[in-house]
Amino acid sequence: MTPSTPWFYRSRNVYRHWAAVFKIISILWVVLALFMLVPFIVLLFERDPDAPAFGVSILIVLGAAALTWLFTYRAALELKPWQMFILTAASWVTISCFASLPLVLGAPQLTFTNAVFESVSAITTTGSTILVGIEHFSDGLKLWRGLMQWMGGIGIIVMGIAILPFLKVGGMRLFHTESSDWSDKVMPRTGGIAKATLTIYVGLTLVAIGSYWFGGMTLLDATVHGMTSLSTGGFANSDASFGAYSEQPWLLWMASIFMLSGALPFVLYIRLLRGSRSALWKDQQVLGLLKLLMATILLLSVWRITQGDHWFESLTHVTFNIISVVTTTGYASDDYSQWGSLPVVAFFYLTFVGGCSGSTSGGMKIFRFQIASLMLLNQLRYLIHANGVFTTRYNQQPVTSDISRSVVAFSFFFFITIAALALSLSALGLDLVTALSGAATAVTNVGPGLGDIIGPAGNFAPLPDAAKWLLCIGMLMGRLEILTVVVLLTPMFWRR
Amino acid sequence: MTPSTPWFYRSRNVYRHWAAVFKIISILWVVLALFMLVPFIVLLFERDPDAPAFGVSILIVLGAAALTWLFTYRAALELKPWQMFILTAASWVTISCFASLPLVLGAPQLTFTNAVFESVSAITTTGSTILVGIEHFSDGLKLWRGLMQWMGGIGIIVMGIAILPFLKVGGMRLFHTESSDWSDKVMPRTGGIAKATLTIYVGLTLVAIGSYWFGGMTLLDATVHGMTSLSTGGFANSDASFGAYSEQPWLLWMASIFMLSGALPFVLYIRLLRGSRSALWKDQQVLGLLKLLMATILLLSVWRITQGDHWFESLTHVTFNIISVVTTTGYASDDYSQWGSLPVVAFFYLTFVGGCSGSTSGGMKIFRFQIASLMLLNQLRYLIHANGVFTTRYNQQPVTSDISRSVVAFSFFFFITIAALALSLSALGLDLVTALSGAATAVTNVGPGLGDIIGPAGNFAPLPDAAKWLLCIGMLMGRLEILTVVVLLTPMFWRR
Repeated sequence: MTPSTPWFYRSRNVYRHWAAVFKIISILWVVLALFMLVPFIVLLFERDPDAPAFGVSILIVLGAAALTWLFTYRAALELKPWQMFILTAASWVTISCFASLPLVLGAPQLTFTNAVFESVSAITTTGSTILVGIEHFSDGLKLWRGLMQWMGGIGIIVMGIAILPFLKVGGMRLFHTESSDWSDKVMPRTGGIAKATLTIYVGLTLVAIGSYWFGGMTLLDATVHGMTSLSTGGFANSDASFGAYSEQPWLLWMASIFMLSGALPFVLYIRLLRGSRSALWKDQQVLGLLKLLMATILLLSVWRITQGDHWFESLTHVTFNIISVVTTTGYASDDYSQWGSLPVVAFFYLTFVGGCSGSTSGGMKIFRFQIASLMLLNQLRYLIHANGVFTTRYNQQPVTSDISRSVVAFSFFFFITIAALALSLSALGLDLVTALSGAATAVTNVGPGLGDIIGPAGNFAPLPDAAKWLLCIGMLMGRLEILTVVVLLTPMFWRR
Repeated sequence: MTPSTPWFYRSRNVYRHWAAVFKIISILWVVLALFMLVPFIVLLFERDPDAPAFGVSILIVLGAAALTWLFTYRAALELKPWQMFILTAASWVTISCFASLPLVLGAPQLTFTNAVFESVSAITTTGSTILVGIEHFSDGLKLWRGLMQWMGGIGIIVMGIAILPFLKVGGMRLFHTESSDWSDKVMPRTGGIAKATLTIYVGLTLVAIGSYWFGGMTLLDATVHGMTSLSTGGFANSDASFGAYSEQPWLLWMASIFMLSGALPFVLYIRLLRGSRSALWKDQQVLGLLKLLMATILLLSVWRITQGDHWFESLTHVTFNIISVVTTTGYASDDYSQWGSLPVVAFFYLTFVGGCSGSTSGGMKIFRFQIASLMLLNQLRYLIHANGVFTTRYNQQPVTSDISRSVVAFSFFFFITIAALALSLSALGLDLVTALSGAATAVTNVGPGLGDIIGPAGNFAPLPDAAKWLLCIGMLMGRLEILTVVVLLTPMFWRR
């Protein structure tokens, strides 16, 4: 199409490009409204004055969805890669905004900034909060915070299985071949995988809820924590986070297991159920994650025990908090920033790691560290044996230069995003530790930062509004694997 | 050679391998002893009781050199790459140790740990110091600190031009082709370049000394600061570093110019002298460095002026301290850690940058950031136009995948080294900011860290001995471009 094309033809073309994207988004909004029904019904039954807030929110979201559908329902549903970029970004942003409605209209009556911060933190399964006195809010609100994270969790798994591998973002192609190979044999379409994944996600969540309930939580607490464990989200029903249960070690151990379950690749669960018993234990990603967890848990437990702490208590809290940070859940059972210098630096590093690709967790993801290590090892070989040719395999697949380049680009963009965010936060007056750890915890979707303000015992409420908006951008960029957003910011993309 | 080779044959082989390396090192030790003559003679003339310390040190170094020469002089001087790895590491380590002798035997009578820390910091041109009350020490000692840095400076330029490009370490091949192409045309051998570089280094140093003297420093202060400016070392003759001259803006501006001169590629000076007037201004490395400096100086000057500071004073101190950190000199004219959050974070980032390859400065070097940016840009293009092929050029040369891989590997190893060092420092009780900034400033050879202890107004003396040894390893690894050392630590290298 040349620049001389008449405007009405061009606008029809623009319509054709965007309609399919927003048709899908309007369907997602309806799903959001269905989720809002849950706290609405609970609050109605409890005759809570907060019920109307959810009722009105549902009407607004459904209205917006209906209006959008009206204009777009005729569009065909085939998406090109560039439309997928827009779809992912636009759906996460709009859903986060709509999800904040009950927080503005209802009981906490948050400012717009605080409400959006809380809902972005929820939907991205980050788990940083600006709410103080969470214990005193309505059941509906607690449930909504849990539901938002649970919804974000399933969203990210579907995105990781069905969308990102096709976009060649950050080396996730590695999992493209894998899941599509597999789907050819066992299931006819991606829809099949999505359905199986959803079943497993719901099943594991129900097991978690049951276990927590059985372990002594109220049904509401069990439900919310079950949902925020599996989604590696990390919202809790108390200002003390999971510290409210710090005297019940069995709850801490159960939570450790469920957080870990949320951070494993969901495709492997399907294979496990289909009879491949070794699916989990032969996967390099899973093995890498477990090895890292064991090594760091051992290191910090020994550290705490040499400081004179009781061995079982140390092991319990170290395990819980390390798993919480590495899986990017972000519960805290204790203020680990008070454990000494080594643990503080260790937790800062662990913030970056993240769980497995195709799970609910964020961060850089363990496979990228593994691919990078393989690459570095090859580079050392190359320095010593100048003329050798070295091939690398990961999970039985060759690591092509295409994949390593993507992994490297992702890592660089990841650090650049965090560095730029931290610099902007420091310009707003946040000190070095708060700015750096705040930027890192947002982009990795972990939750707590370090330092007195946003540390595991702190809260994001005291930050200036501008900092909260910047952190929202960071959380969304991290959740969308950075490049999906960066691409949208280049003039090149729009000139395409 | 098979494992069944008789031991005496094998030991003759081992001799043959190592003799050439140590023959060269013994020559370098003689050079070190010659340098020691300068403070020795000055102290003799001043009838200072410290003179014998240098006399004895000279005898020890010469003795060691003579003994080594005796055993190795018959070796041929052709070195294979793996011998160059050993040569670089062994020469920097042994020279640092020998250079510390006068500090143990003479006036400050430092402990072995402190003396080695001071001399490693000097020879690597880092500039972190453990000396308190520098003003009160003998002229000989001040001169020796300056001479050590000056010697380290010329050492690193020669290494950057003559050795590293041949070792394929960290993408410096980029400068291999350049300097060897060029030497084919204008000068017959590397020896020619080395001689020309030395002449320029001496010439620039003399100009710096003259300018400082003319600007009001004593001859001794002018000499020491001249040497530590050109070598981007950063030792000063006062506990206040260059803050002793904070009321003499012309000295700060002169120092800014000389630090910058030390951070530009010395090969370009040769070209400039040979008539290529645009050599400096057409070089992408130089342009990149200047652009970065201008942008950050503008940012922080505006920041300081909006905080109510006088514009010229702000501009002077911002320029001086930014150039000091980016060139990895490490003078401080003011405690910039008190300038606010944004400057602190900015200085933390600037610690990593470094000057140009083939200069005296450390850090990651500006060209690696440029190569990385080109790579990231290509990756974005690739995400948008899936099937395009993109070639990248740097300074008119194609950036081969070989070079980008080396640059990436270097960057990763650089960050891993700093992260591991910081974690070890935290295990010794150093807080997050001290551990992170201390590790960074050591590996980048900058000098001052951040925080109350090792910040620009602080001193490394209060750190535990173990931390000082770790920092010594960090400074040496940084100076030797990391991989040169990492390679030596792999079993693969020794099995070769």
